[in-house]
Formats: sequence, C-alpha cells, structure tokens
Amino acid sequence: MTRYEKLADEIEGLIRKNVYQEGDKLQSVRQASRQRGLSITTVTRAYLLLESRGLVASKPQSGYFVSARAGEAPAAGKLATSHPAATSSPVDVSRLVLSTLRSISAGDAVPLGSPYPDPGLFPFQKLNRYAYAAGRDEALLGLKDALPPGHPKLLRQIARRYLEKGLRVDPDEIIITVGATEAMNICLQAVAKPGDVIAVESPTFYAMLHAIERMGMKALEVPTHPEYGIDVDALAAIVASQPVAACMVMPNFQNPLGFLMPDERKQALVELAARHGIPIIENGVYNELHFGDSHPSTLKAYDSKGLVLHCSSFSKSLTSAYRIGWALPGRYRDQVEKLKFLNTLTTPSLPQLAIAEFLERDGYDYHLRRIRKAYAQQAKLMKAMVERFFPEGTKTSTPAGGYLLWVELPPRVDALRLYRLALERGITIGPGQMFSVSDGYRNFIRLNYSTPWSDDIEQAVIAVGRIAATCARAA
Amino acid sequence: MTRYEKLADEIEGLIRKNVYQEGDKLQSVRQASRQRGLSITTVTRAYLLLESRGLVASKPQSGYFVSARAGEAPAAGKLATSHPAATSSPVDVSRLVLSTLRSISAGDAVPLGSPYPDPGLFPFQKLNRYAYAAGRDEALLGLKDALPPGHPKLLRQIARRYLEKGLRVDPDEIIITVGATEAMNICLQAVAKPGDVIAVESPTFYAMLHAIERMGMKALEVPTHPEYGIDVDALAAIVASQPVAACMVMPNFQNPLGFLMPDERKQALVELAARHGIPIIENGVYNELHFGDSHPSTLKAYDSKGLVLHCSSFSKSLTSAYRIGWALPGRYRDQVEKLKFLNTLTTPSLPQLAIAEFLERDGYDYHLRRIRKAYAQQAKLMKAMVERFFPEGTKTSTPAGGYLLWVELPPRVDALRLYRLALERGITIGPGQMFSVSDGYRNFIRLNYSTPWSDDIEQAVIAVGRIAATCARAA
Repeated sequence: MTRYEKLADEIEGLIRKNVYQEGDKLQSVRQASRQRGLSITTVTRAYLLLESRGLVASKPQSGYFVSARAGEAPAAGKLATSHPAATSSPVDVSRLVLSTLRSISAGDAVPLGSPYPDPGLFPFQKLNRYAYAAGRDEALLGLKDALPPGHPKLLRQIARRYLEKGLRVDPDEIIITVGATEAMNICLQAVAKPGDVIAVESPTFYAMLHAIERMGMKALEVPTHPEYGIDVDALAAIVASQPVAACMVMPNFQNPLGFLMPDERKQALVELAARHGIPIIENGVYNELHFGDSHPSTLKAYDSKGLVLHCSSFSKSLTSAYRIGWALPGRYRDQVEKLKFLNTLTTPSLPQLAIAEFLERDGYDYHLRRIRKAYAQQAKLMKAMVERFFPEGTKTSTPAGGYLLWVELPPRVDALRLYRLALERGITIGPGQMFSVSDGYRNFIRLNYSTPWSDDIEQAVIAVGRIAATCARAA
Repeated sequence: MTRYEKLADEIEGLIRKNVYQEGDKLQSVRQASRQRGLSITTVTRAYLLLESRGLVASKPQSGYFVSARAGEAPAAGKLATSHPAATSSPVDVSRLVLSTLRSISAGDAVPLGSPYPDPGLFPFQKLNRYAYAAGRDEALLGLKDALPPGHPKLLRQIARRYLEKGLRVDPDEIIITVGATEAMNICLQAVAKPGDVIAVESPTFYAMLHAIERMGMKALEVPTHPEYGIDVDALAAIVASQPVAACMVMPNFQNPLGFLMPDERKQALVELAARHGIPIIENGVYNELHFGDSHPSTLKAYDSKGLVLHCSSFSKSLTSAYRIGWALPGRYRDQVEKLKFLNTLTTPSLPQLAIAEFLERDGYDYHLRRIRKAYAQQAKLMKAMVERFFPEGTKTSTPAGGYLLWVELPPRVDALRLYRLALERGITIGPGQMFSVSDGYRNFIRLNYSTPWSDDIEQAVIAVGRIAATCARAA
C-alpha cells in the first residue's frame, strides 16, 4: 500500500467512526503535510482518493470538507474518479495491444473490441472515386506536394474547417502525417527526450502510451474524472513536486472514457501548463463526433504561448483506410516538420487529395450529422444493454461523443480472461489492461458501438454479459 | 590536418623523392604503428589514403607496396576512393535536404536533382485501377490486414519475388512499412541507441543520415571505392579500434555512387560484421534496376546469423506514390514489428493490395526489363554529355544500375552555389553536401537520368555544365 492510500484509509476510518463528521473541514494539504511529515503530493493524492470514494468534497479556495454523503458509495452504476499509482513507469504495453488488435481484426468476429469506426457509415465510395481520379494524373505521382508539410489543397481545407469551428489556424502551421499516431509520436519527440516523465490521463488511450514507449520515456498516470477529464489540481500537485516534460491528453470524447472536458477545466489545464512551461500534446481525433449541438472547444483555443501541440486525423470521422492525420505544433512547428521528414519522408499525395476534394465539394457536415446521430443513439442502446445484461456491480461511462463505451466489471472479472473467452465465441472486446501502465484496469473493458445496431450486436453484448457473470461468480 | 593525413603526406613525400620506389613494401601497419607511436587505425587510414591517391596498392596477406603508377593521378575522369574524416559526428543534414528536395519538387523545374524515378515509365494507370477496385470493397477498409506485419497477399508476393531471385525468404519475416525510410528508421532503432556510432559509406545516401539524426546517433563515414563500395579493410580497422553499434550500407547501385559491390566484398563485409556481432542495415531499393544481366546478390544472402536487416521498397521500381516498403530484419524481426506498430500503427491496405495484384497478375519482369534498358541507355547519354559539356577536371561515376549519376566538379565549384544558380534557370541538381556529415562533397553533384532523353534534358545538362565552368573560373 502506498503512503497516500494509507493516509486516505486512516482518514476514511476517522470519518466512518464519526470523528470527522459531515461538513467538517479537513486539515489543509499544507498543514497535514507538515504535521505528518508527508509530501504535498502524498496528501493531495490521499484527499483526491477520498474524494473519488465520495467521502470528501473540495470547495474552491476553501479546502476539503467531509461530504454530505460520506460513507455512501458513488451512485450505483457510476464510474468513480481514477486514482492511479503516483509513480512514473517505463511503458511496455504495445505487445499486448498489438496481439489484441490483431485478433480483433482477424476473421469475422463481432467487432465490439475494435478501435475503428464502422466503415459502412463512411463515404468511402466517393473518396475512392476521388483517389482514382487523382491517381490517373501522372503529375501527381512524384515528389511534388508530398513533401512535408503536406499537400497545399488539404492544408487549406483543414485550416478552413477549424476556422468554421471557431479556431483560427494558419495553414502554414499544419503538418500532415501518417495518421494521428505519427503526429503524436513526432510531437512528443519534439518536446521531450528518453527518460523524461510524461503525464497522461488514467485510463489512457494506448496510442499515447505507445508514443511514450517508443521514445523510452516514462508515463505518469494522473487521476481522471469519468465525466470531466484529467484532474487539473492533481496534475498541479504533481508538477509542483517533480519534473514533468510534457502532458498528453484527449480532452474531447476520450478513448476510452468518452468524457467532454468542461471549458473551464480546459482553460485551467492550459494555464497550469503555461505557468510551468510544460507542452501539452492534445489528441482531438474524436472532436467531430460530438453528441451535443455545439462543436467542442480545444485546448489549442486557450493557448497563447504556443505550448499546445494539437494532433488529429480523418480516421475517426471520414476514413480509417487512408491514414491521414496532422499536427498543429504551435511553437514547435519547425521541429515537428523536420521529424515528420525524418520519420516517413512524405505522406502519400493521393489520399490527401481525395480527402481535400471531398471537403471542398461534398457535405462533410451532412455526413457528420448522420454519423453523430447514429452514434448518439447507439451509445444509449449499448449502455442500456450493458446495464441490463451485465452482472451486478457493473458500471458504465456516459460518452458525450465518439463511439466507445467504457465498462467497469465486478472486481473479480479479469478482462483479459473475458476477452479470450469472448473471442472463442466469435466476439471481441477491448481489455482494460491496454489502457494503463499499471494493472489498474484489469476489470474494465471497452466496447465499440459504431456498428449499426443489429441482432448480432445485441446477442454479442448479451453473450459477453453472461460470460462476465460467470467469471464474476467463478473467480 | 589529421594524424593519418600527416602520415600519408609524409610517405607520399618519400615516394615522390624516390626514397620509396616502385614495388617497395611499406612497413606493416603494426610495425609503423609501434615505431611511430600511432594507433593501428591511424596507420591503416594513412595507407588507405595513399591507396586512394594511387600511390600504393595492397596485396592480400602481404601488405602495401609502392604502386607501379606511383606519382600519377587516378585515370582522368575517374573518381577516387573517398577518404572521409576518421571521426564520428552527430548528424544535422535534414534541413538542407528538405529545403533542397522542396525546391526540386516545386514548379516545373527540369528534375535533374530529383531522387525519384520518372513516373511516366511506371504502370501507374494499372496500379490505380487495382487500388480503385480494392477501395470499393468495404471489408478492406478497416483494421483488418492493415496491422503489422502487413497484408498477407503482399507478404506472399514479396517472398515469392525474392525466391525467384535466389533468396529464400520466409513471408513471416517481412514487415511492411511506409517506404524504405520507415524500414531503415525502425531497423536502426531496433539495433542501436542514442549516442551510438553508426558506420556508413562515404558519400552516404542522406536517408541513412536522417535515420541516424532522428535517433540522436553519430555517423562515421568509411572510405568507399566508387566501383566496389565500402572499404571492408578500412571498416575492419575502425571496428577493431572503437565500438560501432551498426553499419548502414547500400551494396547495390548505391545512391549516389551507383556501384555494384562485388560478391566477395559483400561476403567479407557480412563475415566481418558476424565476427564482431555488428548488425548491418542493408538498403536494397535499387536492386531491381541492374544494368547487367543478372540480379545482384544481397548481403542478406551471405548472412547466417540473422545480423543483416534488409530494407527495400517499391518506390524505385514500381511506384513512388504509394510509399510501400518493407524490412527483412533477421533476428530483430519481433522488435522491428513492434517499432513499426509504435511508429505508424498500420500501413494502408489499399496500396498494398494494388501492388500485390500487379505482382500476381502482370508482368513485373517485363516492366523492369523496359525501365532497366531505358536507364542503362540514359546513363550512358548522361555520362557522355557531362564529360563533354562540363568543365575540365570533372569526373563521373559509372553506375552499374539505378538512375543516378555522381559527378565530381573541379574543386573550386561549390555545389550549393551551383544548385542555386541552376535553380534560377529552372534546373535542379542534387548538391553533394546532402551526402555527408562533413563538408567532403562540396564540389560534387548528383544527377537523375530516369526521365526519357529529350532536348530539354540535354539543354539543361549543357546549361549546368556552363554554369559550373563559370563557377570554376570565378572562384
């Protein structure tokens, strides 16, 4: 048990014995730190842990108070704030992720575990025709326009799209990449070096862990609220106590939690980073898939210092097949462009041109409205089905966008075991172990609801629920 | 002046003064080293330098002898063996290369400086139709088959092709990449770490320098013969005297020299590496473009220990537009597959499928025969034109394959200046500065002869020759 868990347990004991009562103020972090000879970080983490247990609540500028609902568990079915280990770790999740994704993509398994959107809802025939037309033109096949930063037509369309959504982007800042994966890799390489500590959400999108692993850096998971995102106060305590080279987050419709970080939290995060001069790598690949009426804001919009390196792609909103992503690297633009050149030389022109044609000539917004509506409905169906057919004690996320549901199973269910048993039945799921450097999410799974609802999907969800129930009893 | 240059100059003086005469044996490297208090490496380098000056010749098992032609320069118009600085250097050539390639690809300039083959000779219409057909199939658009190692159909075709050319390759060893660039990057990352010394040819293909730069490693240029490739004895002296983490070479039709390394030298290189446990990254992107009748052998063919990481692509032989390359990483296969996954997640399926279709259904050999014949003719034309219209003292390579000619200009011509002056006239060339970490090739240029011969090309070559002559006089 860590020190902060010990402290949290001790205080929980005091609350349960009514030594601390509802409304009582806890010692300030500073007082408790001094009195107990513990670091500020340890006390902060203990308080956050108590908060995640629903035992205390923080009031801005005042401190922590014993909660009105002290002693009760969080509302049934609701996920709690995560409280990952407070230490940074080298990363080695890629083998697990690769073997999992490979079996997910093999054969005709029901793709509940897929990270990709169902291509059937995407305008792939139209894109394919544009790619074909571009491919017939000899002049487009050479080096021309393929070199970094990317094809001028696509750069223009991307800048225009941001502008429509309220973010002023200079086309000259954009670097086209092989998917958001390459964008995140080169942005991270531009701002940090091997051995550095990178702060991430918990659970974390595994591609971020991969970027950290690739460079031999260390990941430090930060407590993350299932609906509001990374805990900015917890991050503040961390950066006050140790060097953090960069922060990698997904503020909108995070994979796997699906939350939409509120604007004031986004702003607070950017301000915190600015105070400490810490670059933030922001992944915005799900931004176009909001269930609410308005397009979500980005961290980039609050960034006045060029410290936000915004990464995105068309893979989740238009086509996964073309692997076209980009970076808006702020003050690191030239370094990122150079790293793109070193890493893969060029991004192919034809898919860039096909997408640019689509954005210029067709109804991207119309297409997006259709899939957003479908995903929002399918999210509700998937959540309802899981709540109905999964074993007691199961909790689900409430996605505000995207096409992924995060499910907490009873503690005794091991997600990797569930994954293997489901695979035997021709069903795939995303095991929680992929989303963390610790073993913190071994009883969590990620489900993809992008496929139009069908009996097959429904039967698959019911089957996974039954297997999970068996695991919960058997363990 | 370095120690070995000093020693070489001293011995040259003795030869010129007839202290050493034709047929005289030089002291053995070991004797000279002991007597003069110099390292084995220094003496070896001095002797190699004398050899490259045509003053001495080595006889196997016997030592170095004053050459019959001592005192004469190498045959007029012939390139000499390179003798780069004996120290390793951090690499920072990518900015120069990017800005150069960018201007080369801009506008309608005559592409003598292009690194790419002329797409007009390639079956791009057919490939485009195959890509279109694949792109209409929804089932091919997802994750399936795009994950590393790559699409099974293409893996099979690549293995079959090697087999036809006499190299037994297991399809399971192949990892598909975003061009040979990514293959070289991840192979290098698999075998060496930041700060390590990587031995390369001199001049070196700049993409190899980029891979070294990207990882913060150091490049050590090794003397390289313009017709036989990297000097294996010189490399032996280097690895005996300092740690070398890996060696990156292009044994067939090297960019920029165009040499074909003889089989016995290839074998000696692989054996040297095996003795020292040094991995070799072999770039074979020009292998299909041999002017001779037989397909060249690979280092991989001599490798019994799995130490050769062979990298190649279709970019030089079939299509540059698709960016499909691969690695055969020997004993490092799993590590390279993992790094591919971390670096760009997947390689798009559609271009892989289009190429696999072409290889399966069409006459790849027929296509290759056509372009080989064209390139061989154009190589002769380009060489003859340069010899005729470039200033006195110009020397040219004798490419044994590929589509690139290496030209040494009189010492006073600065290639970057020539490049800028030519660009003003709408002509591009590849300045020698891109091919070295030192400033060793400032009076060299690379010319691309893949474009079918025309008056425009001819006039451009004549114009570059005239500008070079002006530079040679003016400097």
